[in-house]
Amino acid sequence: MSKGITSRQTDYSQWYNDLVIKADLAEYSAVRGCMVIKPYGYAIWERMQAILDAKFKETGHSNAYFPLFIPKSFFSKEAAHVEGFATECAVVTHYRLKNDGNGQIVVDETAKLEEELIVRPTSETIIWNTYKGWIESYRDLPILVNQWANVVRWEMRTRLFLRTAEFLWQEGHTAHATKQEALDEATQMLEVYADFAEKTLAVPVVKGVKTESERFAGALETYCIEALMQDGKALQAGTSHFLGQNFAKAFDVKFTTKEGKQEHVWATSWGVSTRLMGALIMSHSDDQGLVLPPKLAPIQVVIVPIYRSEVEKQQLDNYVDELSRELKEFGIRLKYDDRDTHRPGFKFAEWELKGVPLRVAIGARDMKNGTVELARRDIQSKETVEQEGLAKRINGLLDEIQDSIFQKALNFRAEHTTTVESYDEFKQVLEEKGGFVSCHWDGTTETEQRVKEETKATIRCIPLDTKEEEGTCIFSGKPSIRRVLFARAY
Amino acid sequence: MSKGITSRQTDYSQWYNDLVIKADLAEYSAVRGCMVIKPYGYAIWERMQAILDAKFKETGHSNAYFPLFIPKSFFSKEAAHVEGFATECAVVTHYRLKNDGNGQIVVDETAKLEEELIVRPTSETIIWNTYKGWIESYRDLPILVNQWANVVRWEMRTRLFLRTAEFLWQEGHTAHATKQEALDEATQMLEVYADFAEKTLAVPVVKGVKTESERFAGALETYCIEALMQDGKALQAGTSHFLGQNFAKAFDVKFTTKEGKQEHVWATSWGVSTRLMGALIMSHSDDQGLVLPPKLAPIQVVIVPIYRSEVEKQQLDNYVDELSRELKEFGIRLKYDDRDTHRPGFKFAEWELKGVPLRVAIGARDMKNGTVELARRDIQSKETVEQEGLAKRINGLLDEIQDSIFQKALNFRAEHTTTVESYDEFKQVLEEKGGFVSCHWDGTTETEQRVKEETKATIRCIPLDTKEEEGTCIFSGKPSIRRVLFARAY
Repeated sequence: MSKGITSRQTDYSQWYNDLVIKADLAEYSAVRGCMVIKPYGYAIWERMQAILDAKFKETGHSNAYFPLFIPKSFFSKEAAHVEGFATECAVVTHYRLKNDGNGQIVVDETAKLEEELIVRPTSETIIWNTYKGWIESYRDLPILVNQWANVVRWEMRTRLFLRTAEFLWQEGHTAHATKQEALDEATQMLEVYADFAEKTLAVPVVKGVKTESERFAGALETYCIEALMQDGKALQAGTSHFLGQNFAKAFDVKFTTKEGKQEHVWATSWGVSTRLMGALIMSHSDDQGLVLPPKLAPIQVVIVPIYRSEVEKQQLDNYVDELSRELKEFGIRLKYDDRDTHRPGFKFAEWELKGVPLRVAIGARDMKNGTVELARRDIQSKETVEQEGLAKRINGLLDEIQDSIFQKALNFRAEHTTTVESYDEFKQVLEEKGGFVSCHWDGTTETEQRVKEETKATIRCIPLDTKEEEGTCIFSGKPSIRRVLFARAY
Repeated sequence: MSKGITSRQTDYSQWYNDLVIKADLAEYSAVRGCMVIKPYGYAIWERMQAILDAKFKETGHSNAYFPLFIPKSFFSKEAAHVEGFATECAVVTHYRLKNDGNGQIVVDETAKLEEELIVRPTSETIIWNTYKGWIESYRDLPILVNQWANVVRWEMRTRLFLRTAEFLWQEGHTAHATKQEALDEATQMLEVYADFAEKTLAVPVVKGVKTESERFAGALETYCIEALMQDGKALQAGTSHFLGQNFAKAFDVKFTTKEGKQEHVWATSWGVSTRLMGALIMSHSDDQGLVLPPKLAPIQVVIVPIYRSEVEKQQLDNYVDELSRELKEFGIRLKYDDRDTHRPGFKFAEWELKGVPLRVAIGARDMKNGTVELARRDIQSKETVEQEGLAKRINGLLDEIQDSIFQKALNFRAEHTTTVESYDEFKQVLEEKGGFVSCHWDGTTETEQRVKEETKATIRCIPLDTKEEEGTCIFSGKPSIRRVLFARAY
């Protein structure tokens, strides 16, 4: 098959787009800025969902579902929140269409809503309005709820998975009796995300907090995980917000403490989205297509038979039956691609494009020799190995690949994280090398904005593991007590 | 705890509403007609999803995701389709809010969409527009895709789960090379639904086809499963549509056959929704609350300890640890309710209300005697049984309960299915007894409409297992060749 993927070197952005489309992950729909997630892309998202959902449940959360629509008046109740989202909202104004008498379908103007409804860009407001009815006393706390949902943010410039008008995500919304408990929840979920990114997606992430100007609209603190893509740009892969009592105050949600006092409830919210698909693709993939870490891959092993007669095919089928059984005992997800509509070379290219970690090819000569050909997607190696003990070898290899992909991304990040002491050096690194730039910053939004205007780099986060260290801001020369991470970002 | 559920006898409709709310299944939201599905209700829906999803995958389907919004022009392309849905559509007309300068948030009139977007009430149009890009030749067929999604139909009169403006569902959309293959797919999915309803939900269903007037807007044939609720009203629990080539023609989707000809593609769609929650509740529940079939129940067994000292509690904990391990080996989902904030009586009432199939209560005296108290939710029986072999006994009992609940519903339906030969008898049965009424019908929409106007009963379906039988229409006296099932319905 002709892959038709632009190389990363030639045009990184085009490479990304080609890959998403050619690997059957997603495509643009007829609706401006909205994507269709195709079955193969959705299967990867389903794996992400299943693994994250299990982690949420292990940490005591339950799923629930809240309305798609938010009354405009709710949306306006938390001042910073509406400020942050108002300019990108899809607004429902009518609830009926009609035939205009000339065969055209038009909006029925008599069916105008008294109050417009906003298609949720995030659900804090409708959820906190609901929690008001659920919370009376400390006995009703904590509330640990998550929802898997679609949300809409009317972005002007869209890119598949990275920035689309509609996207899929999960949003956790928790309510607590104390500030400390809410803070602990926010950092716990950050850890859940970081662990998932590194262990499952094999994407190394920096855990940190956002500066004031990059904070979620309505949060007191936004924790984030930041990943580095192969083009040297950063990507925010997940956020966990400590919302303080902002939404409880906006929606008047109080509880009676053990001591009989009335207090406002403390809140968190946290989310990851189909944007993770973008992070995954841009962390590992190459000019041949997608590279999937085995723990995530919907298909971990593809088996391709090579035969010239029905007799040979039957012999291969028998062997693969046995091998499949053994692989399934290890819990390995596999596909036997015995389609007779395509040649082996076509299949090799297709599964390479789709990032299946291991390919087993087997023909009549292999059957005679008791061997198979084993090909690794990540390093594009091929070797002939014994059939004896193959399932166990594959199982071990999958772990090895998972580690190897992560290590490669980790090395890339280490090579693309630069400590600088001056603004000239800062600009030079951004231009010539990209990646994370660690430097001193004076802590003001003004400096942050000026640097952004001049270099397009933003403060991705103040890393949680940053040490206090005296220095001077690379831009203003004012004193600074710790380094932050700048980067150009998606 | 005070349950505060109206009895079925007093007011069936109020009973339903009370139960949904008191058992923490769902509640109305601040958005007209939209519900909040609470964690316990959502856990039941998640079980439904997991079981159905596995069945869809076993039958060769994959999940995907299509946009929430549908351009108005797409929506209008299939004439019958737009006719069916136009009057209940949420319409997005703008994509931005702004501050009006007086501190009010208003719709930004400068951000008006050129073409209005409809919030999907169902996705045939956007999906068939997408399939046009996926299908060239017979090699691209069949396409077997499902999506789990939210949809919006602006219903004027809403009831929790049964009829809400927004609801959750799955919609399968398949594309085939031949008419027969599409017909086979539509009937296969009807079987999947029927099997799920009867084996998992323990809700007996009649499989049938809809008459022309009750068909899905755009379908050539609508297959359905119809269930009977305890108040004698029918409920449509799932539908599977044979769409012929209607959508392929509307969206110009053709394929090249093996012989090199260009033909329109054949289609099906099929769906079940959170309405199944309503069917479930109204099939089995009683004045004490929900009754859940064990195969569906998120919690199958609740264990309540009864103790007066920490020493006793410790002893019970040890025993329950051991029991839990044994129950989990049988794959049984259980909860040990050792909350110290509530008394045993409160817990008994709560789990009864929430329909947990089996309750194990155990106190210090039981520990001495080597016994526990075992209570069945469905028949509200209690017995003292030996600890010895308890896990195995429970496992057997869960199967017995599943069968028993189904059998009870089956008996109810048999008692409430009446064969009539005259219109007087027909009306009398509807008034006095309710349920399904099997009778001859002349096959005309006119008769169907007249009967509906006069009695509020509709033809639920022409059962698939109906035999040809000569007779005369109870309404018109004209000849008829088979019986149909009438009922008043949700």
